[in-house]
Amino acid sequence: MVGEEIYKLAKELYPILTSISGPGLRKFLETIKSHIPQLEIGGFPSGSECFDWTVPLEWKIDEAYIQELETGKIVVDLKNHNLHIVNYSIPVDQVLTFEELEKRLHYREDLPNAIPYITSYYSPYWGFCISYEQYKRLNRNSKYRVVIKSEHYPGYVNYGELYVPGKEDKEVVFSTYVCHPSMGNNELSGPSLTTFLAKRVLDKRGENRLSYRFLFLPETIGSICYISKNLERLKNKVIAGFVITCVGDPGKFSYIPSRYGNTLADKVALNLLDYEIVDYRRYTYLDRGSDERQYCSPGVDLPFCSITRTKYGEYKEYHTSLDDLNFITPDALEESYNFYSNIIDTLESNFVYVASQPCEPQLGKRGLYHNISDGTISDFYKTILDFLAYADGKNDLIDIANHIRKPAYRLIGVANLLKEHGLIRRVE
Amino acid sequence: MVGEEIYKLAKELYPILTSISGPGLRKFLETIKSHIPQLEIGGFPSGSECFDWTVPLEWKIDEAYIQELETGKIVVDLKNHNLHIVNYSIPVDQVLTFEELEKRLHYREDLPNAIPYITSYYSPYWGFCISYEQYKRLNRNSKYRVVIKSEHYPGYVNYGELYVPGKEDKEVVFSTYVCHPSMGNNELSGPSLTTFLAKRVLDKRGENRLSYRFLFLPETIGSICYISKNLERLKNKVIAGFVITCVGDPGKFSYIPSRYGNTLADKVALNLLDYEIVDYRRYTYLDRGSDERQYCSPGVDLPFCSITRTKYGEYKEYHTSLDDLNFITPDALEESYNFYSNIIDTLESNFVYVASQPCEPQLGKRGLYHNISDGTISDFYKTILDFLAYADGKNDLIDIANHIRKPAYRLIGVANLLKEHGLIRRVE
Amino acid sequence: MVGEEIYKLAKELYPILTSISGPGLRKFLETIKSHIPQLEIGGFPSGSECFDWTVPLEWKIDEAYIQELETGKIVVDLKNHNLHIVNYSIPVDQVLTFEELEKRLHYREDLPNAIPYITSYYSPYWGFCISYEQYKRLNRNSKYRVVIKSEHYPGYVNYGELYVPGKEDKEVVFSTYVCHPSMGNNELSGPSLTTFLAKRVLDKRGENRLSYRFLFLPETIGSICYISKNLERLKNKVIAGFVITCVGDPGKFSYIPSRYGNTLADKVALNLLDYEIVDYRRYTYLDRGSDERQYCSPGVDLPFCSITRTKYGEYKEYHTSLDDLNFITPDALEESYNFYSNIIDTLESNFVYVASQPCEPQLGKRGLYHNISDGTISDFYKTILDFLAYADGKNDLIDIANHIRKPAYRLIGVANLLKEHGLIRRVE
Repeated sequence: MVGEEIYKLAKELYPILTSISGPGLRKFLETIKSHIPQLEIGGFPSGSECFDWTVPLEWKIDEAYIQELETGKIVVDLKNHNLHIVNYSIPVDQVLTFEELEKRLHYREDLPNAIPYITSYYSPYWGFCISYEQYKRLNRNSKYRVVIKSEHYPGYVNYGELYVPGKEDKEVVFSTYVCHPSMGNNELSGPSLTTFLAKRVLDKRGENRLSYRFLFLPETIGSICYISKNLERLKNKVIAGFVITCVGDPGKFSYIPSRYGNTLADKVALNLLDYEIVDYRRYTYLDRGSDERQYCSPGVDLPFCSITRTKYGEYKEYHTSLDDLNFITPDALEESYNFYSNIIDTLESNFVYVASQPCEPQLGKRGLYHNISDGTISDFYKTILDFLAYADGKNDLIDIANHIRKPAYRLIGVANLLKEHGLIRRVE
Repeated sequence: MVGEEIYKLAKELYPILTSISGPGLRKFLETIKSHIPQLEIGGFPSGSECFDWTVPLEWKIDEAYIQELETGKIVVDLKNHNLHIVNYSIPVDQVLTFEELEKRLHYREDLPNAIPYITSYYSPYWGFCISYEQYKRLNRNSKYRVVIKSEHYPGYVNYGELYVPGKEDKEVVFSTYVCHPSMGNNELSGPSLTTFLAKRVLDKRGENRLSYRFLFLPETIGSICYISKNLERLKNKVIAGFVITCVGDPGKFSYIPSRYGNTLADKVALNLLDYEIVDYRRYTYLDRGSDERQYCSPGVDLPFCSITRTKYGEYKEYHTSLDDLNFITPDALEESYNFYSNIIDTLESNFVYVASQPCEPQLGKRGLYHNISDGTISDFYKTILDFLAYADGKNDLIDIANHIRKPAYRLIGVANLLKEHGLIRRVE
Repeated sequence: MVGEEIYKLAKELYPILTSISGPGLRKFLETIKSHIPQLEIGGFPSGSECFDWTVPLEWKIDEAYIQELETGKIVVDLKNHNLHIVNYSIPVDQVLTFEELEKRLHYREDLPNAIPYITSYYSPYWGFCISYEQYKRLNRNSKYRVVIKSEHYPGYVNYGELYVPGKEDKEVVFSTYVCHPSMGNNELSGPSLTTFLAKRVLDKRGENRLSYRFLFLPETIGSICYISKNLERLKNKVIAGFVITCVGDPGKFSYIPSRYGNTLADKVALNLLDYEIVDYRRYTYLDRGSDERQYCSPGVDLPFCSITRTKYGEYKEYHTSLDDLNFITPDALEESYNFYSNIIDTLESNFVYVASQPCEPQLGKRGLYHNISDGTISDFYKTILDFLAYADGKNDLIDIANHIRKPAYRLIGVANLLKEHGLIRRVE
């Protein structure tokens, strides 16, 4: 079961302290590459300019802890959980009173057992994240030594890229992010599922009509840098793109549209959501929050949308240690994988069709219709007639599917059958 | 009352064993011609090609019965009901066991008193249709002689056509079908009402602005053949067409749109349905089932829709002997007749209007407005003002009626009044 | 508080017996001019032609009463209420029986204490309006002397006009009417509020981008005459216009659209109604009743709509003496004033914006974003991001506001901030 395999990869990625740059990120990407060796790992050099942004320094961290001086006990230790450190923290080695320490502690009173996930990429800062339970147990009267052995130095913001050329150079892009350490739904589910989607596309290498690009990027800075270096090609080639995130929990499917909700990506996703998933949550572009912010931005205007399970920000465990490997399930990952697989299959077969001649053809003589009639009609024959009714040279497979209220991928067989019988042809 | 006359014609047509071809069909058409002598009866020769179809042979049947050999009793006899025979059955004269006979019997357990209507036009077959009650009474231990004296031979698929030229050669088409024997709503109501609609149009010969064509066709094969021989003319001339079927029962009006629901036929029908009928059933093109399947098919693309009472397939008596002359009523037929008459009147007056000058005219000086004002306004004056408000050269009569939420035919008088006063003019 | 000042002006205008022409109307206009000295008072000469209309004579009235001859008592006297006379009545001095008198009396049985407001401009007529209570008290057996000392003579239909030029010659028009005497909501609220809106625009003379025109017209005849003399200029210059009436009662805001509801006037009004007012009544163009009838008529086609509180015709006191100064309140007038002020401010800033570069800018380095991130975002930062997301060169300020579901005038500050930071620019 592919869901199990995706889950296993998420588990493999879980211990890595990744970030927007540095050895942790590289290890994360190398782990993915161990599953899809064709993955190329690239990087944007620190200090270079990408649109309005300057590529940041690399960040490495060897150690981080808080020691209660009275007892000598290490009360918070990065070794125990990657989220204990404010991601991208500057180094520190100081002795502080509890009052001073407290200002550097992040916790969630509303979720007393959760370690929050905090970042500070663009403003020099250090801090620790702990559960509220941990916080309450700290000795108010002790002094504390805080140690963060981190380093910021010139290097790269790395990313992974896999391009699978098809018969046509029109591209479908799947973009996911790789900078969130040790959280299940947001974000290990994204790169794990995307890896197996890439494997599926690779397995059909040579058969694929469309070309596919899989991007594993640090969120925001990664997508901005990537877009800035590839904007013209993206604009010319990409016919649909999807941001893959939060695809591992068993919650309802959720849809975040492109800026105007009218791209091919939206169209193929909505057909599947409306007629296969049916019970899903429909957000607006105002609810966006991931890299579709960049792909759909003015001046970029790429046809991207995002289909998640429970959306980032919509579950209480979001951006805390409670979004762990128990929050995601192999079954949910498999459902999400199937969803995106259906999208791929639909796009592969999304031709405009036109009936070969006016009026209904005589299906009976081709064995495509019942010969003895009592005035009723089977679902299969009805689908054939309905497909023919909308094969008028104006509708692509998804349009036809929308007209007849079925998921488009379920009509691929009918389309092929009618084509073989010479009853429809593709419009080039 | 025209409803009574239409009903009488249905009664006259009821005994005829019609089919898609043969002497029964011709007798059916001749009966209609006896009411409208201008009707022309044409035919498509057996064996000729129409798009994907080959015109079938004629079918005649002289006798058909099942005899219980043990007693010599005729247990099923075509003489008793035209539906007892599977329409278009091949000849047979055999002795069968009950088990063998049973395979050739069609009945409806869910409707134990109904004889179902079964056809097999395009696959050689013979069979009998009986009620489930009859079936239960058959002696399981007897042998049976089955006799069908039918014949298939080269001839014609016949149809009736009436063309009533108007001042303009733009055509409105009414199409109905004539191949269903001995059923009231589906289908004697259709040709009967259409006959009287034709009489109404003939009565105004010389006055009609538009040209009218009335078609009495065997379903599917008839319309396909007719379209194949007349496609160019139909495409050039037809501005609206209607498939008339199931117009005799007292159920709610029902609307089956054209492929995209956006033709003049849909527009005129919807205006009347929305503002005169109000409480009606709105189907989609997926619910189509009659000759609109051909008229609206890709490559034909004619502006046809269909307005029925209870739609085919939506009542349990459908395609059985229970859809008889009791299922339809003179009142319902009259209401349906009035509906289609209003459509004709609306189309006759469906001009684009434009106000003769800017701002509201001074209606009071023309006696079209009350002179003493208390701030309220009568319905009639309000309608005048609203008509003028939308007479902007962009709206035809139906558009104006939709804007002011009234059935268009009720505005014909207002339009003429305003035109006589020089306050509006027609846009050519 | 401006609401109090508007109310005070309504009170000042209340005693004047205005009409569609004559010294009463002139006094009404002069009173407004005393508040905005820049107002120009113009006139259309009696007997001249305006489209379909002939400009009527002036009307003056010195005295009007009904005397019960038995007692000599004056039972109805114009001195007591301006509505006692049918507006524009011809002169009379007659002795009548009660039965004869009765035919000239207008009252409302359903509102026994209300004096109705009746007019007869275009048909020579005289009559009195009284409350039903007054009517019941009249002595059925007495004779009555009726005296109306009125006069119709050549002169002018006067109107007031104020033009405040801005940097651009594109005009916004506010039109209100001045012919209804002694009624609070319909109609003293209209010219009173419009006067203070004019003062607000005058106060910003030199700063205004757009030009503004304020029109104080007798209803119907005034607007028709004005349009007939200025049609070309109006068509070339006016980008939005509003009919101001019924803006003084504390009822819900109400919206009457332009003919098709798709002009800039509708757009700016709906944005404010949808996202600031929220709970309002939405009428259709069929519910129109004031001078939008002329501005939006075919051939004029100006972008006018009307936003009222409780709409004319929708409250029982309408067109009676009960629509008095108690029916309107300073608070409601202030709310309505603020509404129209927000419309002006929005139009002043209604530019099309485009982001300066692709992708989101780095807001943090400009102090426009929080640097330490826990995955949530403040409303202010969210608004900045959303504004940027829709600043794509296709949307004006109102479009952007509609996309992000806020009243446009509340985004003016954000737009200016982003412009100052060089993150967006205006599209000319």
